[in-house]
Amino acid sequence: MEINIQRKVLEANETQADRNRKYFSERKVFVLNMMSSPGSGKTETLSITIKRLMPHIRVGIIVGDICTRNDADRLGATGAPVVQINTDQFGGDCHLAAHLIDRAAREMDLDSLDLLIVENIGNLVCPAEFDIGENAKAVVLSVTEGEDKPLKYPLMFQVADVALLNKIDLLPYLDVDLNLAVDNIQKVHPKIPVFKISAKTQEGFEGWIGWLKGCVNG
Amino acid sequence: MEINIQRKVLEANETQADRNRKYFSERKVFVLNMMSSPGSGKTETLSITIKRLMPHIRVGIIVGDICTRNDADRLGATGAPVVQINTDQFGGDCHLAAHLIDRAAREMDLDSLDLLIVENIGNLVCPAEFDIGENAKAVVLSVTEGEDKPLKYPLMFQVADVALLNKIDLLPYLDVDLNLAVDNIQKVHPKIPVFKISAKTQEGFEGWIGWLKGCVNG
Repeated sequence: MEINIQRKVLEANETQADRNRKYFSERKVFVLNMMSSPGSGKTETLSITIKRLMPHIRVGIIVGDICTRNDADRLGATGAPVVQINTDQFGGDCHLAAHLIDRAAREMDLDSLDLLIVENIGNLVCPAEFDIGENAKAVVLSVTEGEDKPLKYPLMFQVADVALLNKIDLLPYLDVDLNLAVDNIQKVHPKIPVFKISAKTQEGFEGWIGWLKGCVNG
Repeated sequence: MEINIQRKVLEANETQADRNRKYFSERKVFVLNMMSSPGSGKTETLSITIKRLMPHIRVGIIVGDICTRNDADRLGATGAPVVQINTDQFGGDCHLAAHLIDRAAREMDLDSLDLLIVENIGNLVCPAEFDIGENAKAVVLSVTEGEDKPLKYPLMFQVADVALLNKIDLLPYLDVDLNLAVDNIQKVHPKIPVFKISAKTQEGFEGWIGWLKGCVNG
């Protein structure tokens, strides 16, 4: 029974996601859905990414959290327009659904944007199941989470178009094999681009920024 | 509509959870539900915990993952009986529900156990909503995830009876304020016991082991 209900919820979401995709496409905005576990460093990574892209690429942000405006406040400091979604008003949802993205996007002036980045709720499971009408999905994995996470949460890495391995500045203090982490990501998703970065030291951002610029201009 | 469906799923779960609790109580087994984000160090923390408790306290383990038997294999090395649940057989569920715990527990000889620890799926959101018939809930937060997580994922910290702040060995290399992390946990759940540990160096386990022994013998 639970699985049938899930299927219906996902089907309704898919319909709205297709509508969102059409709406974004008409306004020539590329939409990136950024997902990860809690505390992988999505917000800091985004903050650096936005600073490197603007003003040449005009970026807007939708931030999803169950509670707090912390991330919207941090990202607002970049000068990019930010809309915060708090799902505690909608049953405390563990993911962003397409109808919430529709509502948030209508609060923004999309005609003045080239790229809309959606920072999803910190959760390596459920957001992978919900299409929000994006053009690409990125997954961020902190090296502190261990090399085995792609094998244990394969759907997230299968649906992602690009993976960021963050916090590589901590590698000297961890018993983590970076190459094995990359191998495990590419075991569940062969040939997916993987960028090794540190949002703290800003190391490794060139490849990721290049990939993203390619998407927006492509 | 989605919220009504969620309510019905949760009500059905609650009924099974009450049945589980009665089943465990009749067998005099204390059940602990251990939850966290992916990669917080639950399995390593459990491995050390089991070694310190056994053989005086007889421990059994149920491990939940979407995929892989990695954690069951790691925990089986302690000598404790382990049952692995893989939710990819049940729609890839992002949490352990009470009916899965019922099924797994019936594979174990509960009469030979004092303590059953359930390692839930790595997810700081959904498992907090699903009562599995446990006697206590523990949340593990890695300090690498940042101090703000209790404010952003409050339900998990509200329902928990004890919190473990893990990976404190990494504090010298992080911009994280440990006291603020504790304050934020206790802001959403006043007076909850918080133990600062490192599963890597085994620092700080005395308080946590003492707390757990108190539960089992109490």
